[in-house]
Amino acid sequence: MSRPRRARPAAPPLLTLLTDFGTRDAYVGIMKGVALGICPALQLIDLTHDVPPQAISIGALVLRSAVPYFPAGTVHCAVVDPGVGGTRRAIAVRTPHALLVGPDNGLLAPAAAALGGVEAVHAIENAALCRPTVSRTFHGRDVFAPVAAHLAAGVPLAEVGPALPAPTPLPLPAPTVDGAAVHGEVIHVDRFGNLLTNIDRAAVSGFRAPTLSVRVLDVTVPLVTTYGDVATGSALALWSSWDTLEIAVRDGDAARHFGAQPGMVVTVRSE
Amino acid sequence: MSRPRRARPAAPPLLTLLTDFGTRDAYVGIMKGVALGICPALQLIDLTHDVPPQAISIGALVLRSAVPYFPAGTVHCAVVDPGVGGTRRAIAVRTPHALLVGPDNGLLAPAAAALGGVEAVHAIENAALCRPTVSRTFHGRDVFAPVAAHLAAGVPLAEVGPALPAPTPLPLPAPTVDGAAVHGEVIHVDRFGNLLTNIDRAAVSGFRAPTLSVRVLDVTVPLVTTYGDVATGSALALWSSWDTLEIAVRDGDAARHFGAQPGMVVTVRSE
Amino acid sequence: MSRPRRARPAAPPLLTLLTDFGTRDAYVGIMKGVALGICPALQLIDLTHDVPPQAISIGALVLRSAVPYFPAGTVHCAVVDPGVGGTRRAIAVRTPHALLVGPDNGLLAPAAAALGGVEAVHAIENAALCRPTVSRTFHGRDVFAPVAAHLAAGVPLAEVGPALPAPTPLPLPAPTVDGAAVHGEVIHVDRFGNLLTNIDRAAVSGFRAPTLSVRVLDVTVPLVTTYGDVATGSALALWSSWDTLEIAVRDGDAARHFGAQPGMVVTVRSE
Repeated sequence: MSRPRRARPAAPPLLTLLTDFGTRDAYVGIMKGVALGICPALQLIDLTHDVPPQAISIGALVLRSAVPYFPAGTVHCAVVDPGVGGTRRAIAVRTPHALLVGPDNGLLAPAAAALGGVEAVHAIENAALCRPTVSRTFHGRDVFAPVAAHLAAGVPLAEVGPALPAPTPLPLPAPTVDGAAVHGEVIHVDRFGNLLTNIDRAAVSGFRAPTLSVRVLDVTVPLVTTYGDVATGSALALWSSWDTLEIAVRDGDAARHFGAQPGMVVTVRSE
Repeated sequence: MSRPRRARPAAPPLLTLLTDFGTRDAYVGIMKGVALGICPALQLIDLTHDVPPQAISIGALVLRSAVPYFPAGTVHCAVVDPGVGGTRRAIAVRTPHALLVGPDNGLLAPAAAALGGVEAVHAIENAALCRPTVSRTFHGRDVFAPVAAHLAAGVPLAEVGPALPAPTPLPLPAPTVDGAAVHGEVIHVDRFGNLLTNIDRAAVSGFRAPTLSVRVLDVTVPLVTTYGDVATGSALALWSSWDTLEIAVRDGDAARHFGAQPGMVVTVRSE
Repeated sequence: MSRPRRARPAAPPLLTLLTDFGTRDAYVGIMKGVALGICPALQLIDLTHDVPPQAISIGALVLRSAVPYFPAGTVHCAVVDPGVGGTRRAIAVRTPHALLVGPDNGLLAPAAAALGGVEAVHAIENAALCRPTVSRTFHGRDVFAPVAAHLAAGVPLAEVGPALPAPTPLPLPAPTVDGAAVHGEVIHVDRFGNLLTNIDRAAVSGFRAPTLSVRVLDVTVPLVTTYGDVATGSALALWSSWDTLEIAVRDGDAARHFGAQPGMVVTVRSE
C-alpha cells in the first residue's frame, strides 16, 4: 500500500483533512479552496470532519487510525483547535512516511508515532506561506490549509519556521497491568456502537495462560475471531483491525447494550 | 452522459464508494488511502456513507439509483456487509457499462441490472490484489478498496478469482397487480420526507383507463406532474425522476404527514 | 489565494457544489456522475449539502461565505430549489472572479456580490447543454450539474441561453442604525453554537466613541479579540473571520447559553 508515490510522475500531491468543523457550514470547503489556490493539482481526501467540537483526544485517535494507510509523501492537515488565537503553536511534523500539519496541542503526536516517529518538527511562523491576513479564529483557513498546500506542492519543511524539539504529546489513558489482568477502558464508540478500547495485543502478549477472558461491567464476554462466532444479539470481544480489543454485539449496538461510554473499564484476564 | 471514457486520454479512472460506515470515523478515508496507494490518479466519488448500519436493501436501492448516471468504465465499490468475516463471498461484477465490487449479499444485484445486466461475476480470491493481511472485520480496507483500485487501474476482471454463475439476488418486494389496481409499498424515505415506492410506470402501463388514482392509507392523493400543481401543505403523487411513483407534500414532509415508514401500502388504481 | 488558474496548464477545472440534498441519498453523487460524464478532469469540491431543506437564505449565506476563497475561474453550482418544476428560471452568472449556476430564487445573488458583482446573467434554456430528458423534480441532475460541467469545460456563458438584466436578489435582513446604536440579528447558528450576525465592521465604522458595547438579550457581552480573553464558560463577542460580529461562549455553546435562534436581536452601541 505504500509504494513511493514520488516515483510515479502522474501521482497528484495528496492532502488529507481532519477537523471538528462539521459539514453543515462551508468551513472545510473554504480550506480546500485556499489549498487549491496554492496547489491546483491536489488530491484532497476527507478523513472526517465530525470530531466532536474541540475533542482533541478523539481527533488524535481518529487521525492515528487513518494515516498509516496513505501513500508515502501524503500531507495530513488536522484542525481540532480550542486554543486558536491563543499561545499554542502551529506546527508541521515530518515522519519517515508523511507530513503532518496542525496545532501543537497533542493532536498530531499519536499519528506521528504511528507513521514511524518524528524526524523533524517546525513551528509555523513564515507569514509568506499563510494567507496575507491571519484571523484570530480560523487558522484552518489562514494558516493550516495554505501551509499544508505549500508543503504538498514541494516547499521544504524547514521553510515554515524554526525547528522545535518535539510535538506536544497527547495525554492518553494507558491500560494498567495487575498480575494476570489488564485493566483498560473504552476510548471511542464508533457509528455501529462498537466499543474501541486502549488494550492492544502487546499488552496481553506476556501472559502465560493461553485462555483470555474479557469482562465488561460484571459480564464475561467471549473473545472470538469473528462476529459469526456468537448468536445474533450476543456480545463478543475481538481483536480489531487495529489489533486493539473491541467489544461488539452481533447485529446490534454494544454501546446501547452495555450503556457504555468512553471511560468504561474493560478487563482482560489470563486464566 | 455515457460517452466512452477510455477514448479520452485525460480522464482519470473513476471509483465510487457507498458504505454504511458513516463519516464520524475515518473508515472511508482509510479505504481511499489504500486505493490511492494502488492507483494514485483515481477520481474518487462518494455516493453515500450514511446507509443505515447493515441495511443491505437500502444500500442496494441507493446504489441502483446512482450508477446509471456515471460514465462508462466507472468502478463502483459498495460495502454494506453484516456477514464480514463469515462465509459470504466477495465478488466483482462486469456489466456493459461499469464494474461493481462488494460482498455477494444482494447489495450489487439491482445496480447490475440497472447497468444493463451481468456480463461476468468473479469471486475475489486472489490475495495478491488484497492487502497483505486481511482482517476479519474490515474488508472494505483489506479486500474491496484494493481490488476496486486494481480494476480501476486496468487489471482484468478475471484476475480477481474464479468465475461464478451470477450474483446473489436482493429479495425486494414487488408490487402486486389485482385487476385494475397495483398495490405497492414505500421502500425508502428520503431526506425531504418524500416516500419512494416500488411502483414503476411499467407496472401501470397496461391499464386501459387513462385516469389513475393513488391511495395512501385511506386518502386519495392527486397524481400530478409537478409540486406546484397542488397547494402548499397538500399531498401529491408524481412519477419521480427514476420513473417510480413518489408521494410528497408540497413544501412539507410526506413521511410526517402520513406517519409513513418503509412497508406502508400504496395503491394505484385505473378508473 | 486568487492567482489566475488558467495560467497554469496543469490545473483541473474546479467545480464546487452546495445543495440541501443531504448525504443520506446519492443525489449529490449523481450530480457528480453527470458532471464527470461531460468533463472527466473536474476537481469537485463540496461546500455543504446540509443546508436545511429549502432554506434559500441559509444556502445563500453559506455560499457567499465560501466563494471568495476559491481560485479565479471556479464554477460554483448551488441548488436549494423549492420552486423546481415551476416557473422560476435557471441561471448562470459571471462575476470577475468566478461563475455561478443555480435557480434564480435569490440563492446566488449574495455570492455574486461577494465575488465582485454581476458581469452577466444568462437564463439556462439551451437544451443541448442539459440532459436529454429533464425531469420536473431533479434539476440538480438534469440542468444544473451538466450546465456547470460544460461551463467548467470551457463552453462560453452566452451559449446557455438569453441574457437577463440581473439575478433575483435575496431579501436579507439589514441592520438598522439608531443614533449611536446598530440593531442587527442572528442570521445563522454554526455547528459550534456560535451566533453569526448581520452586523459588519462597516456598520459601526462611523461611530465616534472608540468603545463599543454589545448587548444580547439584556446581557452586555465583552467585545474581545480572541476567545482566550474571557474565562471558560463566559460569553464574548468578536469580529469573525468574515468581519461580521459573532457571539460565542468560550469552550461552550452560545446558542444554548442564550437560547438563541436566527432572528434574535443583537445591538452594538458606541459609548
